[in-house]
Amino acid sequence: MIRKEETICAPATSSGGAISVVRMSGPRSIDICAKVFFPVDKSLILKEQGGFVVVHGEIRDGKEVVDDVLVNIYKYPHSYTGENSIEISCHGSSFIITRILELLVRNGAVTALPGEFTQRAFLNGKMDLSQAEAVADLVASGTKTAHRIAMDQMRGGFSAEISKLRSELLRFASLIELELDFGEEDVEFADRKELTSIIFKVKDLADKLANSFMVGNVIKNGIPVAIVGKPNSGKSTLLNALLNEERAIVSEIPGTTRDVIEDSIVINGLEYRFIDTAGLRDTSDIIESLGIRKTNEKILQAAVILMVDEISEPADRINQRADSIRKMIAGFDKKLIVLVNKIDESDQTAIDYLKHLIYLDIDDSLLFISAKELTGLDRLRRKLGKIFEKERLNQEDVIITNIRHYEALRKVSESLERVISGLAKQIPEDLIATDIRQAIHYLGEITGEITTDEILGNIFKNFCIGK
Amino acid sequence: MIRKEETICAPATSSGGAISVVRMSGPRSIDICAKVFFPVDKSLILKEQGGFVVVHGEIRDGKEVVDDVLVNIYKYPHSYTGENSIEISCHGSSFIITRILELLVRNGAVTALPGEFTQRAFLNGKMDLSQAEAVADLVASGTKTAHRIAMDQMRGGFSAEISKLRSELLRFASLIELELDFGEEDVEFADRKELTSIIFKVKDLADKLANSFMVGNVIKNGIPVAIVGKPNSGKSTLLNALLNEERAIVSEIPGTTRDVIEDSIVINGLEYRFIDTAGLRDTSDIIESLGIRKTNEKILQAAVILMVDEISEPADRINQRADSIRKMIAGFDKKLIVLVNKIDESDQTAIDYLKHLIYLDIDDSLLFISAKELTGLDRLRRKLGKIFEKERLNQEDVIITNIRHYEALRKVSESLERVISGLAKQIPEDLIATDIRQAIHYLGEITGEITTDEILGNIFKNFCIGK
Repeated sequence: MIRKEETICAPATSSGGAISVVRMSGPRSIDICAKVFFPVDKSLILKEQGGFVVVHGEIRDGKEVVDDVLVNIYKYPHSYTGENSIEISCHGSSFIITRILELLVRNGAVTALPGEFTQRAFLNGKMDLSQAEAVADLVASGTKTAHRIAMDQMRGGFSAEISKLRSELLRFASLIELELDFGEEDVEFADRKELTSIIFKVKDLADKLANSFMVGNVIKNGIPVAIVGKPNSGKSTLLNALLNEERAIVSEIPGTTRDVIEDSIVINGLEYRFIDTAGLRDTSDIIESLGIRKTNEKILQAAVILMVDEISEPADRINQRADSIRKMIAGFDKKLIVLVNKIDESDQTAIDYLKHLIYLDIDDSLLFISAKELTGLDRLRRKLGKIFEKERLNQEDVIITNIRHYEALRKVSESLERVISGLAKQIPEDLIATDIRQAIHYLGEITGEITTDEILGNIFKNFCIGK
Repeated sequence: MIRKEETICAPATSSGGAISVVRMSGPRSIDICAKVFFPVDKSLILKEQGGFVVVHGEIRDGKEVVDDVLVNIYKYPHSYTGENSIEISCHGSSFIITRILELLVRNGAVTALPGEFTQRAFLNGKMDLSQAEAVADLVASGTKTAHRIAMDQMRGGFSAEISKLRSELLRFASLIELELDFGEEDVEFADRKELTSIIFKVKDLADKLANSFMVGNVIKNGIPVAIVGKPNSGKSTLLNALLNEERAIVSEIPGTTRDVIEDSIVINGLEYRFIDTAGLRDTSDIIESLGIRKTNEKILQAAVILMVDEISEPADRINQRADSIRKMIAGFDKKLIVLVNKIDESDQTAIDYLKHLIYLDIDDSLLFISAKELTGLDRLRRKLGKIFEKERLNQEDVIITNIRHYEALRKVSESLERVISGLAKQIPEDLIATDIRQAIHYLGEITGEITTDEILGNIFKNFCIGK
């Protein structure tokens, strides 16, 4: 699994751009590079170059020139991985990238596994495990908030929080262990009340972090939104109107498009992801009429349900439909927004009249819109933004977005729960010490002070190649 | 159009990889970078760094850290563009790329037009026009041969050929102009026969280059292949078998796939592109039965026609179908390969029997295959490879792949044709000199010694952003 003696190589950028970067790291990086790379300045010897230097030259396969490239040199330990590393900037043709990788492999490098560069950075002490995980989140971040959290985590904000908890626990543990050493004498070095209050404090912090996962998950993966309603009510027009507006917002800088996230809009830095829009994207209304089972599935997946109806529809029918949705989502943390569409085909009197006849639950919202004429869409965006306003925490708050961290923190909390009840029941110090050590262990798993091959394997296999 | 005083920026890689590169070039590159980039080594002053240096630090927007990056510095005139340039390697998130570009623009850069970096390289004398064009070809190259030609052209092989022609013509022109100077005296400094032979030689070279465009075009754009035949004959099975084999060949290096070119295979470094496979890709045979008009269109577009039939089919029906294709392609430079499929459902006797009954034209080929069991596909690949074997020129041959060069060379040839007939008819030297000057002018257009805004605009608008 871990093969530090190998020199690894991989494409670091995706192909299709003007240039591409091929990366190589490991003890033989510079030697292997020297076999295939010929500097323009013939007197230059690659091995004698310092780190953080760029060299211009050619990649050659025997006599054949594969490409005119720039090579960045990084030297142990001052590189991303902490090893000797090379970055080759070549022309962005997948043919050229493949040729260069073949050459490197033929000269002694091996192709890198997903995440292997970052794994090496972790193994060589360049970053802890939660920072390494943040690298993948950073690459995937699509909104300001997701980016901010990943960046904080990569820069060690989260690790600092964890080590704060850990040092509190270590202080506590040392007191308990001290008492164990003097076990025979039955001394108490620390006031039990004070100890309990320390554990309460640490547990509260662990819980707060664990609970932030709900928000963190929303930030990282977006808020799922379902658009439902009877055929012909204008669901696809609404979807297209919202997405077109979004496209206009994000396409201000030419050459950059949010091409990855397709069916989503961003409000106040949070992403709202429309679920299962395959049917809706086609404007044909026949396709709009999805089966009931499909609609129910969408509602169950969603955090927000946009129920679209027409202004010409009788109020009791609208109430009926809204009611059946309310029954489905009762007990869940889901929000219903009733949208009465096509107000362009009606007048203010009809709107005012209908407004009084539609029954709303305390948390529901009602909006009158015209998806076709883009009326009321701003208010819909504001309404969506407000639902998750309470989730928008301070810039300084540490938020976890990683289920592995969440699970570790839950285990920390459970261990501390046992410590608290143990202290209350005055059970022996050595049992309490065991639970404390367990909590410390789980905190260590987050930052990687404690690791197993399995943990590492699981983390890095989700990375992209070349990172 | 040309705005050398501006500092331009653009993403140089496509997003989606582990890292991305943002590029900036122009007089203010380093100043603008210094406003948003903060080196880890706080004492380091960006402006004081030399070229070909890498600096590690953070991109910041006010207090907020946008990303942890590496910055490559290049200084006038030692850069791709010949200007001060910066390359920022950031994490490969499209969100981060957009943020960095926004920051650069807010601090005085403008977003680059397609090809603007390479255009500047040309305008600053870093490369001639045909070399600049080769950069785009290199990025797009998908096969060994296309890559080799683009690389030769970028390294000046083609330009050298053109300047050889040009200097021959200049020598000729100077002799003629000398005679013009002494016009009253009716002297002849050069033997007319010798002059004519020089012009013949140059015209032959220009024609040879122009004619190489046919091959060059095949190399650059691939050889169009049509798969036709009656429903149920196994066309889609054949296509899938060929493409799957191809995929197995190219996917040896993990993380690199030829994802751009989808429906094509490579034989001996030439690409064979299957035309209009939309219907064939679905294995359902109902969809396979394309209309006659559609089939005819495919045959007209193709250079090679694979006609697929079944072993169970009567020979006269196969002959009939092959004949109707032969009639369509008569007079064109197209090849017909008759494939008798499903030999796994038959035996050798049936094959031998059918072999004698199928009529073939001199250039046609007949192969018995089983697409399902992958029998005979190697022979099909070899057969395809042989058809274009004559197109496979020496490694040293200069081949043109650019229609602009082809058109210019045709005009050179036409001008020289007029010179030759002028010499034969002994028309006045000044008229001959005009045609010579025209030929020199068109050669100059190829390398860019002669340019207009229109030529430049046409060339660089086809580049990708960031190149």
